[in-house]
This record gives sequence, C-alpha cells and structure tokens, in this order.
Amino acid sequence: MSKKIEGIFAPIATPYQEDGNIDIIKYSENVKKFGRTGLAGIVSLGSNGEFVMLSKEEKILLLKATRESLPADKLLIAGTGCESLRDTIELTKVAADVGADAALIINPSYHKRDLTEESMLRFFELTADESPIPVMIYNMPGNSGINLSSSLITKLSKHPNITGVKDSGGNIVQIAETIAGASESFSVFAGSGSFLFATLMLGGKGGTLAVANAAPDFCSGIYSSVMAKEYEKARKMQLDLLPLNAAVTTKYGIGGMKAAMELAGFNGGLPRMPILPAKESAREEIRNIMEKLGLVGKYA
Amino acid sequence: MSKKIEGIFAPIATPYQEDGNIDIIKYSENVKKFGRTGLAGIVSLGSNGEFVMLSKEEKILLLKATRESLPADKLLIAGTGCESLRDTIELTKVAADVGADAALIINPSYHKRDLTEESMLRFFELTADESPIPVMIYNMPGNSGINLSSSLITKLSKHPNITGVKDSGGNIVQIAETIAGASESFSVFAGSGSFLFATLMLGGKGGTLAVANAAPDFCSGIYSSVMAKEYEKARKMQLDLLPLNAAVTTKYGIGGMKAAMELAGFNGGLPRMPILPAKESAREEIRNIMEKLGLVGKYA
Amino acid sequence: MSKKIEGIFAPIATPYQEDGNIDIIKYSENVKKFGRTGLAGIVSLGSNGEFVMLSKEEKILLLKATRESLPADKLLIAGTGCESLRDTIELTKVAADVGADAALIINPSYHKRDLTEESMLRFFELTADESPIPVMIYNMPGNSGINLSSSLITKLSKHPNITGVKDSGGNIVQIAETIAGASESFSVFAGSGSFLFATLMLGGKGGTLAVANAAPDFCSGIYSSVMAKEYEKARKMQLDLLPLNAAVTTKYGIGGMKAAMELAGFNGGLPRMPILPAKESAREEIRNIMEKLGLVGKYA
Amino acid sequence: MSKKIEGIFAPIATPYQEDGNIDIIKYSENVKKFGRTGLAGIVSLGSNGEFVMLSKEEKILLLKATRESLPADKLLIAGTGCESLRDTIELTKVAADVGADAALIINPSYHKRDLTEESMLRFFELTADESPIPVMIYNMPGNSGINLSSSLITKLSKHPNITGVKDSGGNIVQIAETIAGASESFSVFAGSGSFLFATLMLGGKGGTLAVANAAPDFCSGIYSSVMAKEYEKARKMQLDLLPLNAAVTTKYGIGGMKAAMELAGFNGGLPRMPILPAKESAREEIRNIMEKLGLVGKYA
Repeated sequence: MSKKIEGIFAPIATPYQEDGNIDIIKYSENVKKFGRTGLAGIVSLGSNGEFVMLSKEEKILLLKATRESLPADKLLIAGTGCESLRDTIELTKVAADVGADAALIINPSYHKRDLTEESMLRFFELTADESPIPVMIYNMPGNSGINLSSSLITKLSKHPNITGVKDSGGNIVQIAETIAGASESFSVFAGSGSFLFATLMLGGKGGTLAVANAAPDFCSGIYSSVMAKEYEKARKMQLDLLPLNAAVTTKYGIGGMKAAMELAGFNGGLPRMPILPAKESAREEIRNIMEKLGLVGKYA
Repeated sequence: MSKKIEGIFAPIATPYQEDGNIDIIKYSENVKKFGRTGLAGIVSLGSNGEFVMLSKEEKILLLKATRESLPADKLLIAGTGCESLRDTIELTKVAADVGADAALIINPSYHKRDLTEESMLRFFELTADESPIPVMIYNMPGNSGINLSSSLITKLSKHPNITGVKDSGGNIVQIAETIAGASESFSVFAGSGSFLFATLMLGGKGGTLAVANAAPDFCSGIYSSVMAKEYEKARKMQLDLLPLNAAVTTKYGIGGMKAAMELAGFNGGLPRMPILPAKESAREEIRNIMEKLGLVGKYA
Repeated sequence: MSKKIEGIFAPIATPYQEDGNIDIIKYSENVKKFGRTGLAGIVSLGSNGEFVMLSKEEKILLLKATRESLPADKLLIAGTGCESLRDTIELTKVAADVGADAALIINPSYHKRDLTEESMLRFFELTADESPIPVMIYNMPGNSGINLSSSLITKLSKHPNITGVKDSGGNIVQIAETIAGASESFSVFAGSGSFLFATLMLGGKGGTLAVANAAPDFCSGIYSSVMAKEYEKARKMQLDLLPLNAAVTTKYGIGGMKAAMELAGFNGGLPRMPILPAKESAREEIRNIMEKLGLVGKYA
Repeated sequence: MSKKIEGIFAPIATPYQEDGNIDIIKYSENVKKFGRTGLAGIVSLGSNGEFVMLSKEEKILLLKATRESLPADKLLIAGTGCESLRDTIELTKVAADVGADAALIINPSYHKRDLTEESMLRFFELTADESPIPVMIYNMPGNSGINLSSSLITKLSKHPNITGVKDSGGNIVQIAETIAGASESFSVFAGSGSFLFATLMLGGKGGTLAVANAAPDFCSGIYSSVMAKEYEKARKMQLDLLPLNAAVTTKYGIGGMKAAMELAGFNGGLPRMPILPAKESAREEIRNIMEKLGLVGKYA
C-alpha cells in the first residue's frame, strides 16, 4: 500500500537569509536539484535541517515547499519528533496532511533519567497508533545522548505502523542484531555514510546520510552497486567516501556540511546561531577532499 | 542595583489537568506556599518544570502566574534557554517584561559537534548583551550532555550582565575552580541538594535544588546554618538529605519529585508524557524517607 | 619470509586445577583439538587467557605447551603486552625463543593521563624495533579503557615489523579507516565475532574471536564463505552467531566463555578469582543457544 | 590496637637510575625528607609510585627501604592490589611482614565485564580475611575504569579488617554517601588534593594526594587548619592549591608530578617508559605555579 522506503535519502539542510529567516527559494532550488539525482527521496526537518531551532510555522513551510518541488516518484520523509508526546503526534499529523510519505521520529531526550526503555516503548507505540503515515524510528545517540537498544527496536518493529529505523549510532553489532531480530520487511537504514556499505551488506535497506547533501549520486552509487552485486566496487567507494563523510559530520558538523554543499553547487549558507560557519581552514580541507572525488561544482 | 541572587531556590514543577493542559490554579497554589517558606525565590521553567515540553504561550502563562502569586521579597528566576540564539534572546526579553528578576539560561545542546567552547562563549555573551535582566548560566551536563568547563564559566563571569552559574554537574573540583577564578560577586549555585553543603563551604552563594520542591525549609535550613557558622549542624543535615535528594533526582527523576511534592502537601500530579509517573514501589520508598525527615504532610 | 597472518584464531582459555594452578594437561588437550579444526591458529596469553593474572613463569609454560601441541601448519600468536616497555620487550623476545610466530601486543593502559598518542606511538615503535617476530597491535578499549585511533594505527602500519591490528573496539568506521589508510599487506582483524563479517567485507584479513573457543569451525566457516564469495551464506551465519557471541563476551564474560567451551566439549573450568564462574541461569541460556547451532558436544 | 589512619599521606614516587632500574638511594632520601614534614605517613606502591610497572622483587625492595627510612611515628601504607586474588593476598602478607601498617588495595580492573559488584565484594572480603594488617579500599576510576559505588563501600565497611577508603574519583556525592553510610571509625580519604577540603568538611579523615609529593606541608596545613576549625584559612588554601594539583594530576600526570618534586627539592627523575617526562613548557608552567606558592627549592 505505502511506498517502499529503500535507497539513499538526503537529510536536507535549511538555508537562511541574511536576517536569519528561512530562504525558501534557495531551499526549493536544492529540492529540485536533489530530485534529479539518484536519491530515493529527501528527509526534511532532520538533524542536518536544524529542526531543533525551527518554529512550528517554519517546519510546515519547509514541508510544503519540499512536497511542491519534489518529483512524485521521490519520497518525502518528515522529521516530526518533539520532546512531548502530544507535540510529536500533532506535528506528525500535520506532516501527513502536507503530503509526507513517512515520519522519521527521534526519541525525546532531555529528561534522561525519566526516559527509560519503558517510557520510550510507549512513546513510539502511542505515536505510531495515531500517525496517519508510517513511522521510522530515529536513533541518534551522538546528539540525543540516548541509545535505543536493538532489543527495544526489535520490539517496536512488531508494530504495524512502524516501518524501519535510521540508526546513526554506528554500532554495527546493534545494527546486525536489529536486522536479525526484526522482520524481513523492516527497513534498517544507515544514519551516516561511513557505515553505509557494512549496513547494506548485513541486510540494511538504505541510508539517510548528511554527506548525501554534497554527494548524492556518489552515495546512491554505493547503494546501486551493492544491489547489482558489484561488491568490490561498492567497497572501494565506501573507503573513498570516508574523509568527506568525516568532514561533514564528526569533524566540522553542520558548518562543514553547508560548506561542502556550496562547493558542490547547492545552496548552503550560514547555520543558525549558535552554530558557527566552517572556518576557512576547514573549507580548504573540504575542497581538497572534494576535488579528489570530482565533486567540486558538480551540481552548479 | 539588581537584587542579590543568594540563598535557596526551588525549580518549581508544572502541574497538569487531566487533559494534559497546565493546571494554573494548582501551580499558583504551590507558588503561594513556597512564598511562605525559607526559600529565597523560585525558578520557573527549569528542568523540573519540564520546560522542554512547554510551548511559548505556556511559558508566558507560567511566568505571569508566578509573578502574581509570589511575595515581592522573593525572587523570580526564569528559565529562558532555547536551542537557537534568537529564540533565547526573545524569550529572555519576554521574561523581563513579565517581571522576572533574572534569567537562568541553559546552553543549546542538540548539535553537540557544532557546539564548541567558542560557540558557547558567543551564545552567552550575545544573550547577555541583549538581556534586560541579569543572566545566570545553567550547566546541566546530566540532561544536556555538554559540560561547560570552569575556564569557560570564568571567562563568562567577566561579562557585566552575567551574574552567576547554577552548576548541576556536581563536579566539586570544577565548582571550586569556578569560585577561585570568578570575582567575589559572582554567584556559584549548587544545582542539586546532594552537594549543597560542599558548595557553600567552598564559597558558593546558594542553590537551585529539585529537592527544595518537597523540602524547602530543610534546604534553606542548610543554607542558614552555614551562614550562621553552625557547620556541624549543616553537615549533619546534608548527610540526612542525601536519600531524599537521590530519590527525586537520579533514582526516580521528575516522577519521583512530583510524588514527593504530593507527600509533602504540594500539588504534584502527573508528568507530561513520555515521562511516566513514579511507580507504587518508588512512592513507598519516598514516603519512608520523608517520614524519617518529618516531611510527610508538612505543607498540606 | 614470515607466514601470512590471516584467517580465524581462538584466543585460548587457561584451565586451572582445583588448587588454582594451571592445568597444563587440560590446556594441551584443548590445543590439540583446536589443531584439528578450521582455525588458522591460536592466540595464547590473550584477554580470554586471563593473561593479566598470570605470572611470567606461567606465561612461558603456556607458550611452550602450545607450541608443542599445535600442528606445524597452525600459527601461534603470543600475547606479550605489559604495562612497561621493558617488560613488553623482554616477554616478546622470550615468546620468539619459544617459537611464537607473532606477538599480539596490547597497549599499556593504567596511567591513562600519561598514555598520550605520542607515548603509544613510541611504545609500539620501540617494541617493534626490538621484537624478533612480527608485531600485531591489540586495541581493546572495552578492557583497557583506551582506544587506539585509526590515525595512530595507520602511522604504526608503516613500521616494517608491525604487521597488523586486532581491533576489539567494534567501531566499524575506525576499522574501515584503518583499512583505507594502511597498506594492502597490513592485516586488520576483527576482535570479536559480532563484527567479523562486516570487517571481512571491508577488506579485513581475519579475526581473533572469544567465541572461536566454543565454535571454531562455525567462525572459520564465515571466513571461508567470504573467501569463496558466498556472501549470503556468510551473512546468515553472522546473524546466527550474534547471540552466542554476546553470551561469551558482553553478557557473561570469561565465565560464560568457559561454560560454552565445556558445553562444546573443550576443557573450560573455573576462571581465576576474582572472576566468578557463570551462574546456572547463564549456563542454561548458553546451552539453549548452542543447541540451536548444533554445537553442544560437537568437540567432546 | 592498630594506629589510627588519619591525616595526609604522600603516595611516593619511584626514582630510577639511567639504566631504568630503581634508584633506591634517591628513593630513601625522599622518604627521610618526607619524615620531617607534617605528613602522617607515606603510601608506597601507589599509582604515583608506578606500581603497575614494578616487579614483585622491586616492590619488596621499596617497602623495606621505606620502613627503614621512615620515622617510627609515621605510618607506612603499602599498595598491594593485583589483578588476581591470590597475588593480592600474597603481596599483602609480604607487606605486613616487612612492617607496613596497612594495605591500600585497588580493585582488579582489566576484565571489566566479569568484575561485577558481587565479584568485587568477594575480592575485598576474602583479601581482608587473610590480611594481617588493616585494609584500605582504593577507588581509582580514572585509571581503573571501574567505580566502586558508595553502597558497595558501605557494605565493605562492616568488615572488621577493612578500615577505610581512598576515593580518587572525586564524586563528592559518593564521598558524602559513604561517610553517611559507614561507621564513625571508618576513614574516608580524599584521593586527590582538589577535593581535600570538601571531603574533610563532610567528615573525611585525611587524604592521599599526588600533590603531597611536591607540597607536603601545604597539604597537611589544609588538614590541620580544618582540625583547628580555621575553616576560612583552609578554604583559601584549598582554592590556592587547585592549579598545582591539576598540573601534577589531570594535566601532566606522573611526568608533571616528578617535575614538581624536582622543583621542590625532592628526587624526581624520569618516569619508566612508556610514560614520558614532562615537556619543557609544562615544567615552566609548573615552576610559575610553584613560585606563587613559595614552593620552589623549599625542600632542597
């Protein structure tokens, strides 16, 4: 019934005007360009979209713009997790109304002592009960400080409206345990480009990758190589991707990712404060890495 | 010019109605009761007020209700930290308009790779530049996953509109280093009741303590004993307070704290989901601890 | 010149008599049995051999017994890391005299503040300079509390007498970065059975696996399947191995591993105190897992 | 019956000759100098004595030399913890024979998955059963990677031959909980100079402090000030001690501590490899700190 959630997605960045407000024109240009790549779709309002700094009105604006500019054969996944259950359910319903194909929902994370495994189980089950669209769990311990265990995700995979997990933790044993424990139809996604190949080889179905904002076809090329059983080609591409992936995630964060987008020919721009833009030395390093991969100006 | 920020504060809880909306009448009853205790004032919109799950409208409602119900000689500190700089400044201005005496500002924390010490320095300086009221830094590594170092806090203490820090990390060496490095007028507050005595002995000026929601006069008694140089009395009270403090923080979280408030005679009620209420076994344990301290029904 | 270090190795356990001394007869029986499996060789004096609790005399006894009982076509790797450089060099020379084919050397780890990357670099270089046999780096952050980064290992891979790394950390990105950064001849080994398949697919050359003490042919079967390009078979075996691997490592430790060895038909016995033997409930769980894999009594 | 273990102790460093062997003459000179300070005694074979890199013969040599050179009214505490129970008991008996007044015993720490609270409880109880001298528990999570909880230490405090704990973790809440839970006669020691004052104010009985190797009388002065109820004097000394304490522990480790000893006029010398000596920039920083405290050349 619902479209299959497989392949490579870019968790799209949010460009701003000089006054700090969203630049919806530049954003829509990016969406259109991504629509012409090998990506399966776009995640709007993800970590790389700086969702924690966006108002509800801004979130709806971005979802509408994405839906309008994205070709019909590409999927729109909306990041709709909030700290409270009620806000999460409400935003998920809005996303469905606007036309999102699925919701990528991060766990609440501030009240760490209270957010037990039991609490998380109920949060995702109650959200999935109410959601008009399939729910994908978003495990992002690097930002949230909480890891959703493979046993919790396996339990949640039994819910008919929970369709997969994006695991950004990079614990390949946990990813393997999730694949082993969930049903065949449950989509396990790599949450970063550095462990995409390993995840796919273990039976993962795709990835939502910050680095896909700067190198969409390179990322989807790893996926299509694995699908075509060209494993040695995919393996080499994976090793080649490591430095760029590190630069736009662990080393230079969102500032680095936006700099890489600009070098590739997308609209990047400044992050919202307090996130600082990449320094000149970081930009130079990213440029050198991207030149080796033939990515500078590729999407200009 | 501005009032001295010293003594013990309760980071007041937020009670809800059965439909999940704020119960402003019960909240105001609590504020009035706290106004008759030995507390120096109230922190509204702190972690124990579940601020991350409140809308902007709800935050303003709570601040107004606090100001109205709190005696003029008690201080109102407003928790106004948000993930973005612009939202933080805006909410701080609103809090000042409503009559808050100071703003307690937690650092943004989601984008951990981007939130470098440089980023944090600029965030607090720019916020303090714009704030009409004194700013108190809120270091809460247990929830935020980021520790603000003593060297960063010492730097920030030079800003004329940054008046103190609430340190909930409990690293007593860091607290000592902050006291040693900041000026005499800078207020270093214990952020939990378990290290209040040690903080005060090192030169700290007070505390903002979850446990003060259930035991306000016991907590202010430790403070006044130290001020009166009755150190052995204060030391014994500190040791006696440890089990209750653990129960309403590290062991049972906000669910435990709200249960303790009810036992003491305040309005506690349910937390907002996904936070779960304390289980019966936890309530029993808390009751036993509170009975030994003579706190059951004390504020009924 | 030196034999290629590839394939699957068991980090062999140390059985004790009732008086707590080593039972060298039972140990040698195990070695002979392993010699008839698909293993490429044995690691003696590894973590699972409880090397930190063995005297120097006991270590030499075990190395000699291994060499005598192991077929000539199987490799003997000796764990020779000590806290000091001088003890490490001395023990490595002894191991070479006794006939070890290579030395597996863990980094010193107690003085964590002093053991900087510079200190570790010099430790391994100076040891490799003096060692008569090839050196394999042993990264075991779970026990040592120190992670040797991929950039450090890549630097060390340039040393002509450093031949590989056993990485037990399980960070698949670090493993990929090491493979990408080191020369083709450098052997990257999985240090646990839970990420063996992913390591091999990325270009790793083998593994040293606690679980190989209980399931040697199952583990070498994953390796030979990958070598034969039977990837789907290897993938399924990897997923099937996860519960047993967890039981003999993260869940029940050395007590669990020794229980699993006994169930398979090897000599396990008690660990040395303070390590406690597996409880009855753990043994039952391990038996159930091993029955599903057809491993109970397989080597009796 | 046994001497009271109270006051400040130096965990004495081990000097080496150029060939890397122990320089027992320089060591004994240090012991004699310490014997003329305000210290209550000496800990030999502690972390700062680099005990993990010493052979059993070297350990006995050092204990004998300490006993011979230390005045009769000063206590000798011997560090006798080993990874195995049997080695720990044996070394503790040797230390008693040589004349140690008490044994400071660190928990085994390598096999972290196996070293459960139950395992630790039995380790300390069985050791204390066999020890001819009182046992002091040594909690050093920074090096061992394991924290002994206040509930475990409280349980162990009931053993008639377990007399105290040196807690180097610096968690002041844990220290307070231990004091609250143990009997009045149980000695809780600060394990670092940075939280000595706070520990004493809470009811601690003394400290074993790396920084006492370079500033013995300054450290014992904090202790005697608290005993004399000169709290404000003690508080100021504590704040003044923080930079030197950091330099010889968290910042520059054993290399820094040995440099500080030389600046004060004790025999420091090189650490054993792989620990590297302090760099020139660190030495300069330490000299500047020590000059402000009037410590340069004080013991020459």
